[in-house]
Amino acid sequence: MLIVQKYGGTSVGTIDRIQNVARRCLETQRQGHQVAVVVSAMSGETNRLLKLAAQIQEDPNDREVDVIVSTGEQVSVGLLALAIRALGGKARSFLGHQVKIQTDSTFARARIRSIEADPVRAAFAAGEVAVIAGFQGVDEAGNITTLGRGGSDTTGVAIAAALAADACEIYTDVDGVYTTDPNIVADARKIDRISYEEMLELASLGAKVLQIRSVELGMKYGVPIHVRSSFSDAPGTWVVPEEKEMEHVVVSGVTVAKDEAKITVEDLPDIPGVAAKLLAPLADASIVVDVILQNQSWDGTTDMTFTVPLADRRRAVDILRSTIPDLVGNEAERVSWDDDVCKVSVVGVGMRSHAGVAKRMFTLLASESINIQLITTSEIKISVVVAKKYAELALRTLHAGFGLHLPPTERGAL
Amino acid sequence: MLIVQKYGGTSVGTIDRIQNVARRCLETQRQGHQVAVVVSAMSGETNRLLKLAAQIQEDPNDREVDVIVSTGEQVSVGLLALAIRALGGKARSFLGHQVKIQTDSTFARARIRSIEADPVRAAFAAGEVAVIAGFQGVDEAGNITTLGRGGSDTTGVAIAAALAADACEIYTDVDGVYTTDPNIVADARKIDRISYEEMLELASLGAKVLQIRSVELGMKYGVPIHVRSSFSDAPGTWVVPEEKEMEHVVVSGVTVAKDEAKITVEDLPDIPGVAAKLLAPLADASIVVDVILQNQSWDGTTDMTFTVPLADRRRAVDILRSTIPDLVGNEAERVSWDDDVCKVSVVGVGMRSHAGVAKRMFTLLASESINIQLITTSEIKISVVVAKKYAELALRTLHAGFGLHLPPTERGAL
Repeated sequence: MLIVQKYGGTSVGTIDRIQNVARRCLETQRQGHQVAVVVSAMSGETNRLLKLAAQIQEDPNDREVDVIVSTGEQVSVGLLALAIRALGGKARSFLGHQVKIQTDSTFARARIRSIEADPVRAAFAAGEVAVIAGFQGVDEAGNITTLGRGGSDTTGVAIAAALAADACEIYTDVDGVYTTDPNIVADARKIDRISYEEMLELASLGAKVLQIRSVELGMKYGVPIHVRSSFSDAPGTWVVPEEKEMEHVVVSGVTVAKDEAKITVEDLPDIPGVAAKLLAPLADASIVVDVILQNQSWDGTTDMTFTVPLADRRRAVDILRSTIPDLVGNEAERVSWDDDVCKVSVVGVGMRSHAGVAKRMFTLLASESINIQLITTSEIKISVVVAKKYAELALRTLHAGFGLHLPPTERGAL
Repeated sequence: MLIVQKYGGTSVGTIDRIQNVARRCLETQRQGHQVAVVVSAMSGETNRLLKLAAQIQEDPNDREVDVIVSTGEQVSVGLLALAIRALGGKARSFLGHQVKIQTDSTFARARIRSIEADPVRAAFAAGEVAVIAGFQGVDEAGNITTLGRGGSDTTGVAIAAALAADACEIYTDVDGVYTTDPNIVADARKIDRISYEEMLELASLGAKVLQIRSVELGMKYGVPIHVRSSFSDAPGTWVVPEEKEMEHVVVSGVTVAKDEAKITVEDLPDIPGVAAKLLAPLADASIVVDVILQNQSWDGTTDMTFTVPLADRRRAVDILRSTIPDLVGNEAERVSWDDDVCKVSVVGVGMRSHAGVAKRMFTLLASESINIQLITTSEIKISVVVAKKYAELALRTLHAGFGLHLPPTERGAL
């Protein structure tokens, strides 16, 4: 088999751990597999380099900052290749421009366009472990680019796609993807198999195990992703195409996002296009508006409520206050907000074929007297906005109520 | 004019100093010049990276060690380009594979074969300062290589040669090349102009201001090299083709090398080829044999004395003891050595046309009762081996005796 292994910063954080990774790569190779390994910078290194650059220029979206931060992965691949050879194995390191990982020119968050797999295949032919720098690429002009936080996940899956690998193993400091945050819910269960779509919803909702882009790539190219611990041999979580049995699992996971704020705008004229006019300036300012609710009132006006990232709330309110007068006349006192909210979501592909998930969710929350402020739904997800003080209680109630502490086969029907 | 500036590790050792270098680059550009700047790693960084690698593998002559240590310069160029832009200038960084600095494949001490100057010219055309990573290159296969200690000097001169630059300014933490070590001789004088050949003799004899290879390159391509301080605006030392006036300066500098040991082999058969047979195994072991003296004795035997680097003395003696029996029969007790020696040299192109330098040198040493153990001469250099305890005294005596504390025009005849 051809296996791509990706190790995060914690897994290569010390020389000892790098030697541990080297052992694992060789073990996999000795089982008869071809091994390409993608590594991140040693833990703390990317932040150290970013801070160095920030002493001169705060904006990290810059060609030169990418030149600087990409050195973190360069050191890691050199050390890991040395460590594999010190154990008697064969290895060769590859940088973004050597593989070559072609990206667009969006510095600090470039997207991969193509990968030349031939140099890696040549390494395999020579019996070598191919040690590839994560997080980095080159644009068409040969400038060094980086892929954004968690970008090494994306490198790993992209390399796996380019090589048509049998699996991409993502080694991390947790042993898989959980039904919810184990720090909040003690009996959270490790998920054995999950679909790309569910993983995308869980990742974007705050379960920060995999970079979203890597899951998208995995889905696009059908790369089976295995999220597992670099400190144990236990199987972790497989992220794979949707399977028939997954439908029986109505809810796969429950998440909470606490970094949200709610904004309400009252007494808007109830005419077509008002929502677009209100929200366009926020989009122009790159503020992501999420859950949106519009209410019609009896006097021909309308209210609009939506959430924005907590960090953008102040900026959003300023923008609204300056644009609303143009929209409705000279009154700006109609904007209010609430920073003490959170968004709780249940995710599961089974929802497509099972009715009643929403009803069950609302009933469970009501049983704990948790008031629901906003609701939004997709095919495989239901999210509610509630007061932030209920975050943990809501998570525990839903986790228990949907039986997520039990193995999938024992959860029973709704 | 087109000027290449090279800054060493101390000159870019902190963010403040990098900003200082940025100011100097821009100042030069604003005077109407095109500026390419070559930088080393921040001071201490190359050693930090080498130590990291040495925790896994001690031998630094390795493809992967070059991958690791070359990141030091990569960080420097990114930071300097940021700093130039933060001051309102335009800049772009170039790595070895971007310039591109093609080398052979001798990792850790590669030699430059060619440079593609077009990317740098394109930067000039865009009004940018070209910020180029020193010390690194790529071989034909695209592997990263490094040029050895002091390699950034060589990068600077090679870039200047490729661009047919008007000058290569080497910025360092001293303000030029001195007539001798100012730490030993208080009235050592800064040399204003010196020939490449003299500089080569001074550099190889211990005045470690410039990497020898960079002076060779400068001589080959006729690049005027200006060694000067990054902490002042005062002119430093120009290293240039030999000029007519230089002849009037009989002695340019005096140096001492204390890291030498003397080895004597007695009672060798006085037959052709004995020197070659004796020294060949040392050359095979990469031990550099310097001053060599062979004495004929009355009984048909010969003695041979030579110097080796102090660090190689033990190894050299072991090799000699194992090879001499083959040469002369079964006696190995004829090898003796002395670690307490030093090599004192006077250098000057004026020696070519001035007789009497040797006589003057020996007279001066005799006046202080310093016994000369070995003598070797070249066209522009006379070296003597004396007891190490005389190192400083010999240096001061010769420096004063040849009038090096005076301006060249006031030194008078021999």
